[in-house]
Parts: sequence; structure tokens; C-alpha cells
Amino acid sequence: MGDGIQIYELQRMDLRGATVIDGFPSVGLVSSIVANYLINALQLRQIGIMDSPYFPTVSLVREGRPMNPVRIYAGSKPEDAADQLVVFISEFQPPPNLIKGIASTVLDWAQDQRCVQLLCPEGLIVDREAEDAKEAEVYGIGSTDRANEILKKNGVAIFEEGVITGVAGVLLNEGRKRDFDVVTLLSEAHPDYPDARAAARVIETIDKLLLRTELDAKPLYEEAERIEMQLKSIHQQTDGVKKPASPQRPSMYG
Amino acid sequence: MGDGIQIYELQRMDLRGATVIDGFPSVGLVSSIVANYLINALQLRQIGIMDSPYFPTVSLVREGRPMNPVRIYAGSKPEDAADQLVVFISEFQPPPNLIKGIASTVLDWAQDQRCVQLLCPEGLIVDREAEDAKEAEVYGIGSTDRANEILKKNGVAIFEEGVITGVAGVLLNEGRKRDFDVVTLLSEAHPDYPDARAAARVIETIDKLLLRTELDAKPLYEEAERIEMQLKSIHQQTDGVKKPASPQRPSMYG
Amino acid sequence: MGDGIQIYELQRMDLRGATVIDGFPSVGLVSSIVANYLINALQLRQIGIMDSPYFPTVSLVREGRPMNPVRIYAGSKPEDAADQLVVFISEFQPPPNLIKGIASTVLDWAQDQRCVQLLCPEGLIVDREAEDAKEAEVYGIGSTDRANEILKKNGVAIFEEGVITGVAGVLLNEGRKRDFDVVTLLSEAHPDYPDARAAARVIETIDKLLLRTELDAKPLYEEAERIEMQLKSIHQQTDGVKKPASPQRPSMYG
Amino acid sequence: MGDGIQIYELQRMDLRGATVIDGFPSVGLVSSIVANYLINALQLRQIGIMDSPYFPTVSLVREGRPMNPVRIYAGSKPEDAADQLVVFISEFQPPPNLIKGIASTVLDWAQDQRCVQLLCPEGLIVDREAEDAKEAEVYGIGSTDRANEILKKNGVAIFEEGVITGVAGVLLNEGRKRDFDVVTLLSEAHPDYPDARAAARVIETIDKLLLRTELDAKPLYEEAERIEMQLKSIHQQTDGVKKPASPQRPSMYG
Amino acid sequence: MGDGIQIYELQRMDLRGATVIDGFPSVGLVSSIVANYLINALQLRQIGIMDSPYFPTVSLVREGRPMNPVRIYAGSKPEDAADQLVVFISEFQPPPNLIKGIASTVLDWAQDQRCVQLLCPEGLIVDREAEDAKEAEVYGIGSTDRANEILKKNGVAIFEEGVITGVAGVLLNEGRKRDFDVVTLLSEAHPDYPDARAAARVIETIDKLLLRTELDAKPLYEEAERIEMQLKSIHQQTDGVKKPASPQRPSMYG
Repeated sequence: MGDGIQIYELQRMDLRGATVIDGFPSVGLVSSIVANYLINALQLRQIGIMDSPYFPTVSLVREGRPMNPVRIYAGSKPEDAADQLVVFISEFQPPPNLIKGIASTVLDWAQDQRCVQLLCPEGLIVDREAEDAKEAEVYGIGSTDRANEILKKNGVAIFEEGVITGVAGVLLNEGRKRDFDVVTLLSEAHPDYPDARAAARVIETIDKLLLRTELDAKPLYEEAERIEMQLKSIHQQTDGVKKPASPQRPSMYG
Repeated sequence: MGDGIQIYELQRMDLRGATVIDGFPSVGLVSSIVANYLINALQLRQIGIMDSPYFPTVSLVREGRPMNPVRIYAGSKPEDAADQLVVFISEFQPPPNLIKGIASTVLDWAQDQRCVQLLCPEGLIVDREAEDAKEAEVYGIGSTDRANEILKKNGVAIFEEGVITGVAGVLLNEGRKRDFDVVTLLSEAHPDYPDARAAARVIETIDKLLLRTELDAKPLYEEAERIEMQLKSIHQQTDGVKKPASPQRPSMYG
Repeated sequence: MGDGIQIYELQRMDLRGATVIDGFPSVGLVSSIVANYLINALQLRQIGIMDSPYFPTVSLVREGRPMNPVRIYAGSKPEDAADQLVVFISEFQPPPNLIKGIASTVLDWAQDQRCVQLLCPEGLIVDREAEDAKEAEVYGIGSTDRANEILKKNGVAIFEEGVITGVAGVLLNEGRKRDFDVVTLLSEAHPDYPDARAAARVIETIDKLLLRTELDAKPLYEEAERIEMQLKSIHQQTDGVKKPASPQRPSMYG
Repeated sequence: MGDGIQIYELQRMDLRGATVIDGFPSVGLVSSIVANYLINALQLRQIGIMDSPYFPTVSLVREGRPMNPVRIYAGSKPEDAADQLVVFISEFQPPPNLIKGIASTVLDWAQDQRCVQLLCPEGLIVDREAEDAKEAEVYGIGSTDRANEILKKNGVAIFEEGVITGVAGVLLNEGRKRDFDVVTLLSEAHPDYPDARAAARVIETIDKLLLRTELDAKPLYEEAERIEMQLKSIHQQTDGVKKPASPQRPSMYG
Repeated sequence: MGDGIQIYELQRMDLRGATVIDGFPSVGLVSSIVANYLINALQLRQIGIMDSPYFPTVSLVREGRPMNPVRIYAGSKPEDAADQLVVFISEFQPPPNLIKGIASTVLDWAQDQRCVQLLCPEGLIVDREAEDAKEAEVYGIGSTDRANEILKKNGVAIFEEGVITGVAGVLLNEGRKRDFDVVTLLSEAHPDYPDARAAARVIETIDKLLLRTELDAKPLYEEAERIEMQLKSIHQQTDGVKKPASPQRPSMYG
């Protein structure tokens, strides 16, 4: 595609069998909050960066260390040292012309590393009235029948009809084309501010699907709220870096 | 052309002798309604996708399965298992700079598969007064003398003078250049909303030309109206995906 | 130039010694009217098309046959079967970035075919008062001394000082560079509508230079007027196809 | 640079030891007037053209001969047949993205031909009050110490501090990089109209540096004024060809 | 990246072990003032230029010598002839699309020359009230733990949390990726005019880190103010050259 998107590994790890989490910004910053939570809670280490001549020219300094805006973290799940978790996190909202390149670079790399699946946390906008009527929920949609089966087995409602845009949408299409398991987890979220509760519900679903660590929900929700505050501040700081002004808005018509 | 348009086959089928239907959006969404009707009525299966870095970054979820915005379906005609039907359907209106690439990719692929002809359903805008005066009709125009002969033999009026724009226009020119039978079927249609009746008239003509299944017109018109409602809703859902704001408008001066 | 302009031959003809007429739109559509007249009067046959990914995505249907917007016609002059005439005709006004590519593609092809000269009919805008004062006239300018000699010998006034823009201007420059005879015939024309009389004067000059068929002027002027009406209607029909809003305007300061 | 700027030689000449004059438009059209004067006064012949797909699509007709907008002339100096003079003259103001390509093409060609130096006549804008106070003057600046020495030896004041933009600026930088003698001669000029007097002062300086023909100043100033009128008319004629709306404005702070 | 940024060496020097100073414009022109001061104070010589087809088409004339807008100077530190200093200085603010190319070209070249570190002086915008409350300070941030250690050992406060944009930000990221020592020195500066005092504080820090020449602070501040005046005048002169209208604004949240 000529967009020169590349992944640089800062540290080699054996990632066979790992699950990859897509943390590119989505509605209500659900993916960003989830990615940040997992990096902190599971103490993942930065193993690489993703860069392109068209990514922002910015260095983020955290705890006295400069960082690229798009980074890759990895580490083991607490219970099971064999199964790794990889998290892509991005401090910028990719413009439309970079989305296909980013999605295929993530997937190419995941397949090269012999990772086995990719999870995309997404926010889902719902009508205000509908929201009052029914309980907020997490829906799932997989790129393959295999992936949909796992969702059903774990009691995750299938997202039957609708549209998913952006990196997550392209990952789903690519997953189907390549017969690779991509799962989008959609949590009803407010489109206008970081929605920590929507993220917490996704984290509970990921825990159910992958970690089975029976995490206490309360600190998780508190943690989510802390991250929410932090992210708001980061996005205010990142002057000149494009804010998710027109966020990806998958909508639901189930 | 550097637009990287490619066809990916999800499933191999022997398509020698098949007829290809162009379902890229046209005036009154005639082509979309026709394509959808044929896929449902003949229970065609998805055999491939068409994609490009410049196509929309969107996944359409239908019945719990993610789908690309441009897809290829195929299957047998009910009466005659030997003669296949292939349908290209697109949920997005291609911008002008992609039209030539799409048309030649469709035709290259059709010729590689040894398909024998290509049918393009199109809407035709007519003057309001003229519309009242004479009965709505379907006109046809072929890329070759051979194709025009078949139209005449089946009682389809020839579109003698006028202009056909967009994918259908380029397919006609390319068909003539390659000596490949491309037939545009023009049905008088309202430019401003999905015109199910115009589509039904094209379906009757296709039935006459290809299927000879003597389908009952009534359920066909009802079905067309159902699809019309569904398409309206899909186009409202597909937020961010370019709507056919300036649709292709072939006009008639016969 | 990366504009991918190509000529496709639909039919092979021996064009050695032929004269090529440039019918790309000019001021007052003089070139278009002349090209149409010659195609009809001499019953030329379409032998090829010129196409590019950047040409309009449109098919023109005439007498039940689809046609590309830029076409090549050829045939013999009535008196002398050995000397062929080739006419390039275009239904669209090329944008500035395609003009150099079109001119050099025409000239490359003409030289490959061993054609011997190229004639460009052009309209010439004159001041209103000046127009009243002196008789409307046809001026000529050749790319070579040889071409200018032929003009003088046939009593065509030389266009001494001025500017010629667009395809005709580039063809003159290229002709001089390649030492190939390119002749621009400039006829005083109204810039705002198809000027059939200006075209008729050019046709009389072409007749003098090439055909010597001593055509009766009256039917020629009538024919020109008929074509004028037809062209006006075609340009109204070609909705979406760029109209010659800012036509090429060579001006005269002789 | 991908701008495809090329020089075509219409006629081969031995130009070893020649001086090249840059006649691309500058403030007050000083360079254009100087280039025109030298071509006429020394009866130089056109030996080549410079062209690019991005140059204007226009043919200039002068004395019944079509010409490219950028041309190269050459001939001997009157006193000394061995030392040639080469003049680049351009009827259009190059846009910023073509300036570097033009400058390096001129210099590459000059070095290939073993020319020994390049002179760039430039206009210099001065403050109105300052202008009244002191006599108008010609300043010089060379790309090498060698070139500056020659200027000083001939009594030309050195342009000590300031900024030179456009083709002349890039030629100076390139000359320094390649150790090739490039000399810019800056004459105080009005920015808003062709300044024949500023050009006449540059011609006197060139005469001093190169020709030593002791030309009578009076006819020179008259000639300059005639050219000024002619150039004004040409620029009005060249409709559609970009006018030097925002001319290069070197300014002086000596 | 296709931006064709290249370094041309005018003079070869052995630069093994040298420290490189980045003088591309930053907030308050801190980097420009520092770079100019070092060139003058240490009498560095110009050894090269950096150029690209996309850099401004301008020649800066200083003391009768034409210069490119981006230049490289080098020379020895006064006390220790073995340790060289290299300064990149730019008279223009690079647009966003050139920043990554400039940063990697600087770093590639520095590594080719076996230079050992790169210092980037930057201005840091602070809140007006906060400014009154606490003493203005210089912070540092290194691309490696090694670089941060050196900062701490020399008593430079670490920039713990924040965002650094532009050339300096990309150099930090690249330095981390390549494990090359890049140090950004951030001095609280006024964003709206050349801030000589902020620059003087950075010069004191550089003296502490590198030169240990125990320079008297007073002349340094006076010199800084002289440069400030000169730079203001240069930026007014450089008409047509893009001014740092939207300067890089790293902000501090320590």
C-alpha cells in the first residue's frame, strides 16, 4: 500500500499460541482503556513498536522514558505461563488511509509469530431510550465459525446484524479471508467521553474467555476509572496529535 | 492503474459458460435490488470478495457473519444445473477514480473464468411528463452485434441514443474493445430512492433472457419491495460509508 | 508521463501517407464540427479508440452501438483511394494535465503509421469591433518551413504572431521538435457556442489543401449547421462529463 | 525529482568556454528583458528547448514560427568569435515545485557543454525612501571566491547580506556545492512592472564583465523600453499561462 | 520516504566521538540561538549542507557568501582538540511531512561518522502563574538509560512526563530504537519570540555536560541577546520562507 508501516521488535519473545489484543482507539476509548488495564494488571513489557512515515512525529515521555505513539507489549497470563498475551496500544487515531495498512500489518505479524487469535474491544453506540430499557451488554462477533462457537460456549451474545468500521472492521474481514480467528467484543458505550464502565465489561468478558482469574470486579471498575482520568489528561496533553474527533461508531440493530 | 483492486476467491467453482451480473449501485439502486433478489431467490453462495486499499474500511455483519463491502456470489440456475450465474454485489458506490479499475478487474476475471456474458441492470431517468404519457419500459444495449441480436430476438427494445456512465458505461466500452458480450438493461427509475418496481421489470427481462422460470410476477414485486426497505435501512446504518449522493444517471433520448 | 494514454486498434489499415485531423474540442467547437463533418461526408470507419484511466467513465450510445469518448476514424479521400484520411474525435475536453500526453500519443502513433501530416482546426477569438471591420478569415501556421510553404502556395494567410494553447499548441511545438508537418488552421469563431460557419470555412480550406473535390459550399454550411445542433444536444446529454467551460482560446494579434 | 525536465537540442554547437545567461522571470522582469536584449542585439540563434510535462501547454507564434515557452539561444560575442554566449529564456514563471529541477537541469547541461560560468540578472526591491536618497546600483554575488574576485576587479559592489529566492537562489547554492561560477547581478527594480532601466543597468554590467563592446547607453535604454512594451503585451496575450503574480523578491540589507 | 533528503559534505573531517547538536527551529527559537552561539563562540567551520527537493528555494547571503538554508558546521571544543562538535542549523521550520526524514537522515549520518551522542535544545512552554512561582529550569530526557544517567550525574532534572513533538521528538524515539544516545534539553521559554535567556540556560547546561570551559555567564547572556536581535531580523528578511507560525510545543507536567 506504500504506507511503509513496519513493526520493529525491541525484544524477541516466543509468542506461539498467544492472543493479540487490538488497542487502537475506538468509540468511548474502550479499546485504549482495556489495553492500558491489561498492560498494568498483567505487568506486560514493551517488546516492540509500530511506525510509519505517516504516523505522528511525537515522543511520549512516561516515567522519564521516551516512547513511540504505537507500541507492542507482551507477557504471560498469571495462571498459565505458557499462554502469552500481546497488546497493541496506540496514542493516536489512525486516519482512514492508514487503517487497512495497520490492520494487515498487525495480522501479518500475528501470523508470523504463530499467535492464535486476535481480540478487538469496541464501543457500541445505542439509542438513549433503548439504553434505559435494557441492561448494558457485551456482544461478540467472530471472523470464523470456530470463533463464533467459542463466544457462544462462553455465553457471549452474538452481534447478528450491523456495521463495524475502522481497524476492527478490517481485521474481521481479513480474519475471514485468511481463516484466522478475529473476535470483536462490542460493549455499549458513550461516544463522547472515555467510558470506563464499558471497558470494564469487556475486561470481564476477556477474563471469562482467556484468563479465568476470577478477578474481583470492584477494583477492576476502580482501576478502569483511574485509567479513564489518566487517558483524558494524556489526550489533553497530546497537543497537535489528532484527537479521535470522529471516532469509529459501530452501531447495533440486533 | 495502481489502485490495487483484487479478487480473492474463497471457494473455487467451475464457472465456464456462466453469466455475470454487475450489482454495483446505479440510479434507483436498480442493480443492487436485482443482485440481492437473485442471490436470495436462487440461493447463491458467496465464492469471493473484491478488495482494494481504497475500498471502505468497514465490515458488514449479517446473520452473525462479517462480510466485505464488495462480494461475489455464484450458483446454478434452477432449471439447468450446467449454466451458472455469478453476481457481483457492492454496498458502496465506487468513486470515479476506481470505476475503470473495477470494470476491468470484473471483466478480466470473467474472461479468466470463461464466463460468456455480463449483464448490467441500470436505472434510467425519464422526464416526468414523458413518464405519464408512455408505459415504463426496459431497454437494452449490447457491446457487440451478437449481444444486440439476442436482445432483439427476445423482444427487448434497443437503447439507440444516449449516454451510460459509471461501471456499466465502462463495461460496455471494454466489452466492445474485447469483443465480449456485455448487455446493459435500462429500466426507467426514480433517481431519488430505491426503485423496486424498476428492478422488478429488469428481473422479468433477465428471466426472459436467461432463466425462463416463468416466475410469478406478484411475489417478485413484493420481494422487490421487501429488499427495498432492507436496503434503505442498510444505507442508513452504513454511517461513514459514502452514500450514492451523485448516482450514475444514464438518460434516454430514444 | 504516467497518464497511461493508449491507442487500441479495432481494425488494421495501411495508413502510409495519410493526413491526420485533430478533432479534440477547441474554441467554438470548430475542431469537433470539422471532424464530425469529415467522418460523415467521407463515410470514414472507426478503426480505433484512445483511452486512459483518467478519461471519463462514459459510454456514448449512437445508433444502438456503444462508443468510447475518444475515437479514431479512417478512410480514403473520394478522388484518390491511395491517400487516406485519419480523424481523431473526442467528446470530452481534456484537462490540462492530460494535454501533453494526448498530443505526444497522437504524434507517436501518426509517425508509427507513417502518416505524413497533421491538421488541427482551431477557433480564433477576435475583438468585436475588429470583427465588424474586416472579413472573417482562416489563418494557418505550420510547425516546419515546409508546412508554411504549402499554406502560402494555397493562399492561406500565415498566423504571424500570437499564442496557441491546448492540444493544438503542443502538437505545433512537438511537430517542430520532431520535424513533422503539423498545421493549425485558425478560423475566427465565437467562443460561447458551436460556430458552424467558422468550421465551414476551415472545411473549405481543408478541401483546398487536401481534397480538391470542389464541394458546393451551400450544403456544407447547412450540414455544419445540422452538426452544430446535434453537438449542442450531445453536450447537454453528457451530464457529469466535463464541459469545455474554459475552452482553449488562441488569440490573434497579426 | 520526477518532474521530467529535459533539454532537447535542435542544433549542435561547440559551447566550450561559453557564458550562460539565466532568463527565467525575476522581479521587474529584469532577467527577461536582459535575455531578450542579448538575443536581439547579438543575433543569437535558437539551439534548443527545455520542456517538461509540467510546463504550460502553449505554443508562442513569432514571425510565423511556433515556439516552446522555454528556449535556449546561442551565438558568438561580437568582438571575439571564440567565446560563445548561451541564453535561457522563459515565457512563464516556474512554480516553486519546479524551481530546483530547472536550476539543476540548467547547471547539469552547462557543465556537460563545458560552459564556464552562469550569469543571473535579478531585480532588487528597495525601500522607497532609500531609493530617493541614493543612486540606483547593480550589486553582484558569486557562488565562489573566484567569481567574487572577478566582480570586485570589475568594480561591481558585492551583495553582502540578504536573501535570493527562486531559480537564481538555487543556482547560487548549487554553484557553490559544485564549485561552478554562478554570478547573480542584482539591479534595483520596481516589483510591479517590467523595469527596463533596471535591465539596462544589468546589461551595462554584463557588457563590462564580458563583452567590452562599449555600447552606446542611449539606444540600449531605448531598446530596453521597446522590449518592455513588447513583453507587457506578450504577458497579456498569454492567457491561461500563469503570470508572475508573486514574483521572486530578493531584498537588500547591505 | 521518497523525500530525497541528502547530506553533501563540502569538506571531510574525522568526526569519531563527536557530539552532534540539533539546531532545527524549536519553541522560542531556543535551538537556533544555541546553534548560532556555538558556531560563533567555538568558531566552527561549515563542512556540509543538507538539501532536498522539498526544502525552500532560497539562498542566504552572509558576508558576501551564498548559503543553503540547512547547513552543518564542525570544529573542536576549545580545551580538548580530540573531541569534535557538530552543529546542524536550519533557517526554516520543516513541515510535518519532512520531519521523520530529516531526523533519520541526521541520525544515519551521525552514526556513519561514528559520532557518539546527539543533543537537542528545546523550548518548554509553562503556565504563566507556575512560571512566577518557581525558578526557570532546564530539564533533560535521554533516549537510553545510559543518557539519563549522565544527565542525573550532572545535576540535570529529568523530564518525567510529557510530550515532545517535531524533529526532537522523533530523534528521541529513533535514538531509543537504535540504542543511540539522544538527549533533549528543555528550557522554559516564551513561545512567541526568540527567547535568548532560555537559550543561555541551555548553553550553560551544554557547557556543564560537554565543554567545562567555565564560561562567564554575563557575556553569554549578552551574546545570546545579540543573536536574538540578529535572528529576528533574518526571519523578517526571509520573506516567502515559512515562519515557525505553529512552533513545536513540548509541554511539561512533571
